[in-house]
Amino acid sequence: MRIALDALGTDDAPGPEIEGALGALEDGPEDLTLLLVGNGPLLEEELTKRGSDIPRGRLEVVHAPDRILPGESPATAVRRRPQSSIVTGIRLQKEGRAEAFVSAGSTGAVMAGSLILLRPLPGVDRPAIGTLLPTAAGPTLMLDAGANVDCKSRHLLQFAQLGHIYAQDLMGLERPRVALLNIGEEPEKGDELALETHALLRKAPGINFVGNVEGRDIIQGACDVLVCDGFVGNVLLKFYESVAEFIVGLLYREMDRIGTELDVRGAFRVLDYSEYGGAPLLGVNGVTVICHGSSTPRAIRNAIGVASRAVASGMVTHIARELDLNGTAGED
Amino acid sequence: MRIALDALGTDDAPGPEIEGALGALEDGPEDLTLLLVGNGPLLEEELTKRGSDIPRGRLEVVHAPDRILPGESPATAVRRRPQSSIVTGIRLQKEGRAEAFVSAGSTGAVMAGSLILLRPLPGVDRPAIGTLLPTAAGPTLMLDAGANVDCKSRHLLQFAQLGHIYAQDLMGLERPRVALLNIGEEPEKGDELALETHALLRKAPGINFVGNVEGRDIIQGACDVLVCDGFVGNVLLKFYESVAEFIVGLLYREMDRIGTELDVRGAFRVLDYSEYGGAPLLGVNGVTVICHGSSTPRAIRNAIGVASRAVASGMVTHIARELDLNGTAGED
Repeated sequence: MRIALDALGTDDAPGPEIEGALGALEDGPEDLTLLLVGNGPLLEEELTKRGSDIPRGRLEVVHAPDRILPGESPATAVRRRPQSSIVTGIRLQKEGRAEAFVSAGSTGAVMAGSLILLRPLPGVDRPAIGTLLPTAAGPTLMLDAGANVDCKSRHLLQFAQLGHIYAQDLMGLERPRVALLNIGEEPEKGDELALETHALLRKAPGINFVGNVEGRDIIQGACDVLVCDGFVGNVLLKFYESVAEFIVGLLYREMDRIGTELDVRGAFRVLDYSEYGGAPLLGVNGVTVICHGSSTPRAIRNAIGVASRAVASGMVTHIARELDLNGTAGED
Repeated sequence: MRIALDALGTDDAPGPEIEGALGALEDGPEDLTLLLVGNGPLLEEELTKRGSDIPRGRLEVVHAPDRILPGESPATAVRRRPQSSIVTGIRLQKEGRAEAFVSAGSTGAVMAGSLILLRPLPGVDRPAIGTLLPTAAGPTLMLDAGANVDCKSRHLLQFAQLGHIYAQDLMGLERPRVALLNIGEEPEKGDELALETHALLRKAPGINFVGNVEGRDIIQGACDVLVCDGFVGNVLLKFYESVAEFIVGLLYREMDRIGTELDVRGAFRVLDYSEYGGAPLLGVNGVTVICHGSSTPRAIRNAIGVASRAVASGMVTHIARELDLNGTAGED
């Protein structure tokens, strides 16, 4: 299995990428080879510096000197920067030289590049970003986390189908509980989009739809797959991350004040995003996993793990088969 | 000043209401009289039980034996239950016997009752629920917190105007920073509603619009007034409350495990919702403050404080003058 890794992605690139890659090679599978995509000479130098422990046979360097910056318009940057690590990494997959791509670079550019180069699967109108939210009962896959605003109910139905398959293939759930994010539990609650989507999900074949889930139910793990518009999903995701960080900060201040030491990291392991790795872009003809710009080596390592499980499980074929069968795609 | 208090509101009514009322009378103002609206004989009995400390001259009982339950359709319940504490309490205001109403009963019914009996102010298409979110830099008023889904940009502009006045009159801010909740900082980010609203807010007279605020910026106190659709606002509010609770629970577990005692309540005071009291329904011709069903005496006490400051500052007149001047209301 060959997975391409953007080595110009994180804010501190390529350190976290190289460390994360080494960790991922330890995790396996044994036939895993990683392609570090970035400034070739610099990467070679970094690897040489790290000495003889580096399993160079399983770590290839692909030269891509250009970097897409966060502020750039994604679609334009993808077209204008063919030598960027993002475009090069995705192209490796298109050309069959890699089976997946992992990047902590510009989310917009990774998404635009994947849509343009890999294309959406038949039956998928709009690929969605799935993200794993830590909850009291383990992770909940929320999608869309920000790829699509102004969704129609048909799109949310497809998100449910994509999430259903991801939860089966990567979370090991035979019959994942799929829910709709809404402002009340009753079917008649919500905005127009929620009402329409609720009706579609109730009669969707093969989906274990457990109904509406409110903001307050998420953290208890009320469902395995949480479907929402990319606007709400993005607001919620960013809010969650910042609140967890903020609260840990408050605690450290309090501990300093009274001179106690508490294993905050231990207590909060359940809330640690880096445990879950990156966010998959679901519905494209390939495996793309998106990471935070601030990713730690551990987060990169786990994101590669997500990509490798997606490849090993045949998730893309699985999605292509199911979505095409259901035929929910339409004209926008 | 006379404020009506629903004594059949909280899950444990009327205990928290009576305790909260007594606290509020201590807080003042000195001319404050509270009207406890609920089962008259029962309330009299409860007050008698509490003995001679009760300032009965400032605590009147208004008999309203009926209670609207959470599951009932709000509009129907308001029409069919004129003897309910909610309808009676709002009617007291309409008849000039009270200047405000505070309730921890069914949010939907309090809202429906206020809209039907008090009516929206001229210039306001849709009254909104404002809620104070605890942040690192003090409270941020978020509106709408759930009264209106499927908003148009014109409605969000009005929410901004309502929030601006609330922040001036009740939060003591001369030039409150008003922001739009969005998925990116740039003006061109967001869904159609966000794009249109951003454009309206930029040219809104008298509003100190500081631009878009993302989910991750809220907790740092990036703005004083945060404008959003009631769907997003409701999801976010409920999520925030549940996350704070969940994290405190995690900590207690960890402290039990290692036998440390940490002043969690102290560290989290900044996140304590009950400090802020209830959520005002902004834009109706009167003062309505909505509380959680699970409100503590402290939350009720603070909600009465919010109502009394709204009355004392002349907030309703202020809103009526500003909104009518700006003339942003339109046809739906």
